[in-house]
Parts: sequence; C-alpha cells; structure tokens
Amino acid sequence: MIIILKETTASAMQARLVAQFGAKTEIFTHDNRIALQGVNPDELPADVLAAADEVITDVPAAVQSSRLLHPEDTIIKTPHSVIGGADLVMMAGPCSVESAEHVMAMAKVAKQGGATVVRGGAFKPRTSPYSFQGLGETGLQYLRAAADANGLDMITEVMDDEHVEMVAKYTDIFQIGARNMQNFSLLKAVGQTNIPVALKRGMSATIDDVLNAAEYIAAGGNHQIMLLERGIRTFDNKYTRNTFDLGAVPVLQQLTHYPVIVDPSHAVGEWDLVTPMAMAGVAASASGMIVEIHDDPTHALSDGPQALKPKTYLKMAKQAFQLHDLMQTWD
Amino acid sequence: MIIILKETTASAMQARLVAQFGAKTEIFTHDNRIALQGVNPDELPADVLAAADEVITDVPAAVQSSRLLHPEDTIIKTPHSVIGGADLVMMAGPCSVESAEHVMAMAKVAKQGGATVVRGGAFKPRTSPYSFQGLGETGLQYLRAAADANGLDMITEVMDDEHVEMVAKYTDIFQIGARNMQNFSLLKAVGQTNIPVALKRGMSATIDDVLNAAEYIAAGGNHQIMLLERGIRTFDNKYTRNTFDLGAVPVLQQLTHYPVIVDPSHAVGEWDLVTPMAMAGVAASASGMIVEIHDDPTHALSDGPQALKPKTYLKMAKQAFQLHDLMQTWD
Amino acid sequence: MIIILKETTASAMQARLVAQFGAKTEIFTHDNRIALQGVNPDELPADVLAAADEVITDVPAAVQSSRLLHPEDTIIKTPHSVIGGADLVMMAGPCSVESAEHVMAMAKVAKQGGATVVRGGAFKPRTSPYSFQGLGETGLQYLRAAADANGLDMITEVMDDEHVEMVAKYTDIFQIGARNMQNFSLLKAVGQTNIPVALKRGMSATIDDVLNAAEYIAAGGNHQIMLLERGIRTFDNKYTRNTFDLGAVPVLQQLTHYPVIVDPSHAVGEWDLVTPMAMAGVAASASGMIVEIHDDPTHALSDGPQALKPKTYLKMAKQAFQLHDLMQTWD
Amino acid sequence: MIIILKETTASAMQARLVAQFGAKTEIFTHDNRIALQGVNPDELPADVLAAADEVITDVPAAVQSSRLLHPEDTIIKTPHSVIGGADLVMMAGPCSVESAEHVMAMAKVAKQGGATVVRGGAFKPRTSPYSFQGLGETGLQYLRAAADANGLDMITEVMDDEHVEMVAKYTDIFQIGARNMQNFSLLKAVGQTNIPVALKRGMSATIDDVLNAAEYIAAGGNHQIMLLERGIRTFDNKYTRNTFDLGAVPVLQQLTHYPVIVDPSHAVGEWDLVTPMAMAGVAASASGMIVEIHDDPTHALSDGPQALKPKTYLKMAKQAFQLHDLMQTWD
Repeated sequence: MIIILKETTASAMQARLVAQFGAKTEIFTHDNRIALQGVNPDELPADVLAAADEVITDVPAAVQSSRLLHPEDTIIKTPHSVIGGADLVMMAGPCSVESAEHVMAMAKVAKQGGATVVRGGAFKPRTSPYSFQGLGETGLQYLRAAADANGLDMITEVMDDEHVEMVAKYTDIFQIGARNMQNFSLLKAVGQTNIPVALKRGMSATIDDVLNAAEYIAAGGNHQIMLLERGIRTFDNKYTRNTFDLGAVPVLQQLTHYPVIVDPSHAVGEWDLVTPMAMAGVAASASGMIVEIHDDPTHALSDGPQALKPKTYLKMAKQAFQLHDLMQTWD
Repeated sequence: MIIILKETTASAMQARLVAQFGAKTEIFTHDNRIALQGVNPDELPADVLAAADEVITDVPAAVQSSRLLHPEDTIIKTPHSVIGGADLVMMAGPCSVESAEHVMAMAKVAKQGGATVVRGGAFKPRTSPYSFQGLGETGLQYLRAAADANGLDMITEVMDDEHVEMVAKYTDIFQIGARNMQNFSLLKAVGQTNIPVALKRGMSATIDDVLNAAEYIAAGGNHQIMLLERGIRTFDNKYTRNTFDLGAVPVLQQLTHYPVIVDPSHAVGEWDLVTPMAMAGVAASASGMIVEIHDDPTHALSDGPQALKPKTYLKMAKQAFQLHDLMQTWD
Repeated sequence: MIIILKETTASAMQARLVAQFGAKTEIFTHDNRIALQGVNPDELPADVLAAADEVITDVPAAVQSSRLLHPEDTIIKTPHSVIGGADLVMMAGPCSVESAEHVMAMAKVAKQGGATVVRGGAFKPRTSPYSFQGLGETGLQYLRAAADANGLDMITEVMDDEHVEMVAKYTDIFQIGARNMQNFSLLKAVGQTNIPVALKRGMSATIDDVLNAAEYIAAGGNHQIMLLERGIRTFDNKYTRNTFDLGAVPVLQQLTHYPVIVDPSHAVGEWDLVTPMAMAGVAASASGMIVEIHDDPTHALSDGPQALKPKTYLKMAKQAFQLHDLMQTWD
Repeated sequence: MIIILKETTASAMQARLVAQFGAKTEIFTHDNRIALQGVNPDELPADVLAAADEVITDVPAAVQSSRLLHPEDTIIKTPHSVIGGADLVMMAGPCSVESAEHVMAMAKVAKQGGATVVRGGAFKPRTSPYSFQGLGETGLQYLRAAADANGLDMITEVMDDEHVEMVAKYTDIFQIGARNMQNFSLLKAVGQTNIPVALKRGMSATIDDVLNAAEYIAAGGNHQIMLLERGIRTFDNKYTRNTFDLGAVPVLQQLTHYPVIVDPSHAVGEWDLVTPMAMAGVAASASGMIVEIHDDPTHALSDGPQALKPKTYLKMAKQAFQLHDLMQTWD
C-alpha cells in the first residue's frame, strides 16, 4: 500500500505510521508519500486516512523502484555525465580491457564520438572456463588511466561480492552483468556502496524481475541505479544473438524512475546491425546507450563480431546525437 | 547454387542451363544470375563455368526472395504509394471496418497524417469463435469507398483461399495475417494473383520461416511482396502483447529485396507504447509502418487498447516523417 | 457464466433461459448445466437462481471445451479405436504416404506394434514450396487401402477448407497441423462434419489458444475433438526440434474433457530421443500417442530423422503398453 | 581435439603430448584418451598419430563434461546414496528449512517414501528482497540434524562463494540454483571442494550453457557433478510456472557422463501437476528426482503451491519406484 499524504501534514503522518507499523514491516517514504508492505487499509488510523489524498493498494513488490512511490525521474550525476536527464549519454569502449595502450586508444575514440563514459571489462563472465577471463585488477588500472586521460567516467563489470570493494576503488559506475542479474549476494553488496550501478537485464528476465533485482540494490540504500536493456533470449537466434526488446524501454520508463540505457551491441551481436538498433534505441527514448568499439575486431579478445570500428562508431554516434536533438524539439 | 554470369553471355548460358537442367529441377533467372536447386557445381559444363563470375553454393531454400539472386530492392507501386523506395509509407486505419461512416472518418484522419494506404479488417481472425468476425464483403465495400474518397490505397486481410477472388475485386494490397503465415494454400492462392501482398510474420516464425512463406507467393509468380514485422511471442508478455523484434528489420533487409514494414500496434498492444515503438521502427530503417487508429478506442469492435486516437496519431505521424527526413540526410 | 441447475428442474429452467436470452447471446447446455455468454448474474430471474446449485462466473471463452460445462471425459469411438477411455491408443505410420506398397508395409508394422490407427500425409505443409508436397488424393487412396487391409483407422492431415469434403471421403480422423491451428476457416469447415478431429497445438500456442481453436470446431457442431501436444518453439532448439511440453498434458486434462494425445516424433525431431519421450508421454497420462515409422529413414520423402525403424517402434510400443498397464494398477 | 590412443602406448603418448603442448594449452586425459584444446591435428607428431585409434576434431568447449573424453557414466557416492547408477534416487524435503521440528518431521516423511537425500533451503534466492531469505547457518544445522536422525544425505543451496566454506561444513551435496547457474565465481568456488554439486539448469540456459557451467566446476578439479532439469522459461507460463523440458534428459545423457536429475516441483509450480511430471521424468530415464514436500503448504514460508503433502508424496514415490522397477526389465 502507498499513501499519498496531504503536503502539510505529511511528515507528521509519516512519523506516526513509522511509530505504529515500523516494527512489523518495511516502510519507505518519499516526499509526501509512504509505502507500507503488508498493511491493510483498514488497519490505518482514521486521521491518517483523513490526511491522505490517495491510498494505492495495488503496489508492486519492488516498491522503491516504482513511480507510485517516487514519481519523478532519478537523475544520476557522475563526474562527467548526467544520466537520466535531457542529454543522451554515450558509453563506449572495448568489450575487454586488452592492454594499457589499447584501452587508452579506444577511450580516445569514444570521447571523440561524444561519449562521457568509457567501458571495458577486467573481469569477464565467459561461457567457457577456458576462454579469456580478463586482466583483473590490472585491467581496472588501465581503464581508470584511460578514463582519466580523456576526461571520461569509467564503467566496468563486477562479478562477485568479494570484488566489490576492489572494483569500487577504480570505477565510477558498477556494471552488473546479465548472468548475474539475480545474483542476490552481489546485488546486496553493491547496494551497500554509494557508487552508481548499471544493472543489465538477464537473458530471460521479465520486467518485474528486473525491477525486483533493482530493489535488492535499493534495499541496501543505493538508489543510483540505471537499467540496461541488452536483448532477451527467444526462439529467434540465428541471425541475431538475442532479441532486442525495445518495448521494454517505454514500459520501464512508465513503471520506474530509474534511467534506461540500451546496449545494441550485445542485443544483436553483429556489428552491421548495431547502427540501426542504436538508432532505434534512441528513437525509443532511451536515456543513453553503451556500445562496443574495437579497432581490430577480428583480433579482439572477446566479442569481436559485435564491435564497431572507430569510423563506424563515429558516424553512428553523430547520427544518434542528431536524432536525439530532433527528439528534443518534440514536446 | 546461384551462378553470376558475365553480362555478355548471360542470356545464352541461362538458356543452355534451362535446356540441360530444366526438366529435373526448379530454375530461376534474374538479370545475369541463375539459380539451380539441387545441381552440383561439378555437374556444370565447362563453358558455363568459364562464363561465370562467381558460383555461390550456399544458397537458401527461399532463393527467389534472396538478394543473392535479386540484389536490388523490390519497389512496389500501387495507385497512391511507392513501397520500398526512398519515401516512408504510412498505412493507418481501424482494426476492423465497423461501419461505412466510421471507416470513412478514419480514412480521412489517416490521410491527414500523411498515410497513402488505409487499413481495415472485414474478415477478422479472432481467437474465439464468439468474438466479432468482421462485416465480410460489406466491410470491403465500405473500406473501398473510404479509400477512394480520400485518394488512398486499401489494404485488408484475406483469410482463406476461397476468398481471394472476392477480396481481389476490392483491395490494392492483400494482407496475410500472422496466424496464416504458414497457411500454404492461402499463400499459393495469392501467389496466383498480381496484387501486392503484405505478409505478416507469424508469432513464432523465424526469419527463414518468413522468407520461405514469401517464397510460396513468389513461386506462384507474384513478386510484389512486402514483409510485416508485428512482434513475436516470447516469455515477456505481461506489459506488451508481443515482443517487437526490430532486429528483424535490418536482418531481413540484408537477406531479401522485399520491403519491410513495421506494425507497432500489434507488436506492443498498448496505445501508449505505440509512438516510441513507431519511432524505433522508422529509426531501424523500415520502409513504412501500419498503425491502428480509432476515435473511440474503448468502444472499438476489436483491439481497442492498441489504437491511437486521431490526435495522437497525427502527432506520431508528423514525428515519423521528420525522423525519416533526418535519416535521408545520412549518407 | 455457467449455471449448475438442480437435476429435477434443469430442463425447464434451461428452456426458460433459452427463451429469455437466446436471441441476444450464445447459449450452450450440457446435462443440468447451461452456459450463457455475456449475461450477468443479476440479470437472472429469481426462480432460476433458486433452481441453481451453483453459478460459476469465471468461465473461459472456450466454454464448450471446458470441464465447467462438460465435466466428464469425451470418449471418441472410431471403427477400431476408443480414444479417451481406459486404453492407450497407438497411432503410427510414415510421415508422408510415399507409395501404395510402402504405406501398406508400414501399416502392417503399425498394427504389429498394437496400433489401431495408421497415419500418413497426403497433403504436406512443407516450409519450402520446393519440397515434396504430398501425393494428394492418390495418397489418400493408398492410405485408406493400407488401413482397411490391416483393420486400422486412418488419420491424415487436411490443409485447407476446400479439401475437407474430399479428405472426408477417405479418412476416419482429420488431422489439423500445427501451422494451421489458427486457420479459422479450416477449423470451421471440419466443425461442419461429423468426423473426429485431431487438433495439433501450434508452435507458439498457449493452452488457451488451443482450447479456443478447439472451440471453433465445437461451435460448428462437431464435438469429437482430440488435442495433440507436439512440442513448442522455445530458445532451446539445437538438439531437439521443439520443446516437448508434457506439462500441457495434465493441464489440458484438468481444463478440458477432450482426449490428449502426444506426438513425440515432432516434439524432438530425432529418432533416438523418441522412445524416452514416448514413455514420458504415457507416464504423463496421455490417452495415446502418434509416432512416425519408416523402414528406410534416410530415404524418407519427409522427416526421416525422426522416424523410428520398425524394430525400434515395436520395442517402444511394447514398453508403452507395459507402462500403461502398470499405471492402470494405480487408482 | 580428442585423441583415442591405443591402450598399450596410451600413457607414454599422453606424457609426450603433455610435455610438448602442456605449456601452451589446457590438456585433459581420461584412460586412454587425451583432449588438447586449440591444437590442430597437423601439429601432432607422426608417432602420436600412429598410436591413435581415432582423432576427434569436433569437440565441445566443455570437454571434460563430454562423453567423447569420458564415455562411461559418472557415478556419485554419498554416505546414503549412489547417484547415476542403476537405482532411482529420491530427494525430498521442504522448500525452506522453517524450524528444527518441521524439517525433522519432513525428513522422516521423505525417508518413508524411499528418499535417501533430504532437501531444504537455508539461504533462499528470492525474487524480492522483502521475502523470507532463509534461516542461514541455523537452517543448515537443523537440516543436518534432520538428515542424520533419519539416515539421509543432505542437499542445500549455496548462493555465493563466500558461503561455500561454511555450507561445506554441513552438507553432503551443494545445490547451485538456477539463477546462479552462470555465477562463475560461485562455480569456481565449489569446484575447489570435493563435495558433490547439483547444478540446476538456468531458466534460459541452453544445453551447451549447462555443460559449460558444469565445466567451470570440473575445471577446478571437482568432477562429482549432477545436472538438474527444473523447467525453462517460455511463452507458456499461465498454467505452469515453467516448461518442463524433459527432452533435455536424454539429450544430456547422450552428451555427458554426469547424472541427470529432474525437479518436477519447480518445473510446473503446482502441486497437482507434480505427480504426472514426476512419472514422466522417471519414464524419460532420469537418474533421480528432487521434490518439495510440506505438511501445510498454505502456510509454507516459500513455494507452498508446488509442495506435495506427505500422503501425495508417499503415493507418488511408490509409483515412481514401481515405474523404475518396470524400466529395469527393459533391455
């Protein structure tokens, strides 16, 4: 249940409800709203009801993620980016951090295309244990250096709760990978930090699953969350690696206040499909995108087929910003 | 196998191959190309090989649909539209033809938004036998009148082979519904006509299934085919009726020469998601879109929840054309 | 709404309700039950309510298929089989009718394994127009002869409404293929006959879709319907052609009174997986199975990889009947 | 590449190959077989080729899991169970450990039905952070006591790598949950132990994904792995929670030597569907099953709807063993 209280008495009523129900249930407040899990409207004192503009009883489990409790957009500010606001946020970089020089060069390209965030994996969740698993902490150092040299924020994946503290020393944004979207121990661990988290949708995660996973982070006190649509697993997987579910963008924007970012690279898995899907993602109103770039995709240590070469990336990025500019003229 | 012949001797070689293999296999020619199903390269005469620029052995079953045989775009011309060319084609109208007056009014709105084709169902494939099944031939007459009065082409669904002749008397474009995508008798029947066919992708049809279904139409001699992406069935169906598979747009455009149209209305099934998905479809490079409009969605005889009201449609259409104009400035 | 009436006054009350509501809605009666679509309980006369044991308001659209209206099992009797009763019904035969001799030989094998129905396709719904499309009416004649010579019933697919009359001259059971499960014109056509219909579940048909498709047949007056689970399309399609959804067997048995048959051959598409899946189907309580057999699978005109050789079939069938016998000892 | 060496010289040749290629690639040996990743047959010395009965070049990434390297079944022996042998292994217990008394009572019921393993969750991966998360280490102690008192093995889920050491102090078998199937840090951690691992298939994991996940465990040196089919996520989720993919049982048994166990409870999520699906799982040749039982499902702390009451469980288990006995008489 969420109660929308009259502004004037909201604080007092919230305090009363916390005093009365706080011991028996989770309570969340936001401005003049208050959410009480597992309390029935008929348990509410009469004066609370009198002080309420509206009582909403059909409330999702992921209540902190819901616009019913938190109607306005969450805007996340990092040193070089504002995520969830009016600007389109570009995040680009190689799939894996391969060397200090390489990631430095790719960060420069990313910046040139208008990116404010550089991506790169130092810990790689690979399907096979015998595939390249990433450079580890050294990779984080290389990526941090590349970000700093180019005036960019850094985003990188953290794969388990034991690494959270170490990765936190370097990154501006944690990425939680699709395979770990319901690794609840990891979600709880990043929820204890104050570093923004980019949560990738799991391969077969429903919209509600995504929001509940985000709620694990929020429950720890970290509300700087962005959601990444990166394609879902369907029967249709011969020509694209996944099915890019762009309908999830406006659906999530209706349900939650967290920014929604699209990842066309993983969604399709083929570089020559990335540009049209990136454009589609912007047109679907995403707050930003994250794309993979590589100057020599055939020799990339991971995911080469989906990486854009610098020239293609620069053209795509230019078009994306033009498209976003046009959309700003639509009320 | 497809053989790309040198231009100068292409006709002669094609004639030779038809003479030699025509009795035992299907042969298709297009300009200086020739496709022979079930013939091995080592069965080819030496002079044919000498006259070939290239022999392609990895050829899909749906060979007439393939760009390997027919590299250039198919462009379909109807009285009021050019489909598959530089222009964005807008098709709009009510889900069902409900009355002469209603469809006339909706056609006027469609036209106002820049549509050149009006849609409306007279034969409705409804999940339940007890739901409204359409007005039948009377509905076709109403839709024809509405199209003519507004200078529009007409598109309408034909549900079985027995109706093809009758529907052909009225319509400019046949629509084959998703549930009938593999109704091969129906595909063969429309393949015998010279009326353009809009083939909707089945709910669980792979890309290859779509192309093979199109091939049934082409095998009958009708090559005026357009393909409609309308969402696929996946696990993700709480907030959207289907999953709009926009990756299919560039994938199909790479594989086939037929125009690709998007149907955001059926893809998501909720009117307030239609505009972002329509924009995404245009940004993904579709040749056009088909959308449902209704001035009183709550009383629509079918699919009301996904219909755009006239005002919303007009705004969406304006944005779509602006977006398409911007895209024309990109290389 | 379904009303369960007291036995003594059921007929009189049913007559009253038909008189009162028959002009405005569909009404179905079964024993002392009556279903009225689109009527609210508060529209009912007081004496009807007084004569009711129960009023069920949450009723599916496919009301004739529902156990709420028709609680007892439908049992279908053909010359040589009782489908939906205590016996396990075995249906076997080649995918396609290939020749008079071949189908005769296969029918003999089918019979030897305990089958009472021989299958074989004369009209084949093939993905590609260039694949073998079946022998047509000649194939029906061959199959009929093979059935008669071995004292078997015949089941064969009918692909479009124009063929219903012709196929009806030969077959004991119509099969509606998965691709045609929502070919409503075809469903209506077989609904006009009095020949039993085996309705295959579509590749992405939900349970409710299957029941609504069956309702199209029932709405025409033909209630001799059996439902075939033959695998659904999912992301998991590398090692099996489809995903055999055996959970659908008990789910359908709870919801509907029609017999449920399993088709392990199409479900998995690989002969060496057919036996364990056939056993699983029997153990899941299916009323019967339909399997493909061929003495020379590598040269079969269609679907060779999934056909059981006679020896394998005979062993499988023997095990299936043993398993079914064991299950009869479980109350 | 896998080389099958002649028995007499196998050891010598394996030693040679390790000496030659060990520094540059992963090498695995099993009896007279040796697998070398990333080595081409033409790099092999002539005498190795001469000593080979067969060189298999099409080898999956998950090579240790493959029957190509390890043809015979893996049989796992725990104090009270032999998993993967001729016997059907029954594992039963409550979803969550709720109290010392409750799990003790449920273990007694499990034993009565023929179970040799008792299950129960102490760390629960719940979709929502506000749901019951399990009793933690206390729950492990209760479950251990219940197992010991009834002469049963214990299986329980471990959710993150930090808990592996602690859970290892209590359990006989680790369970890795579906949501963690690709939590590679966790897989590596249990791979370092010598405790058997039951790996649940992820909701959208392909067969190859499952085998690669198992390979992460094997790569750490732990080869006591069993695989659990527990239903996959598909479009068909109204009447069953997941789609029970029983085709995966024989497919996995062909590809890998690890035992395959079925979990009908999670697969369907409704208690009244569990028995037919359990029978189907046995008939599909699974080595065992794991089922949830509860004496008061409506008050269960998790997953009550899918739990069998004791009486239903006992009947189901009796049938399962009868069915398995019958199957032992087949070839």
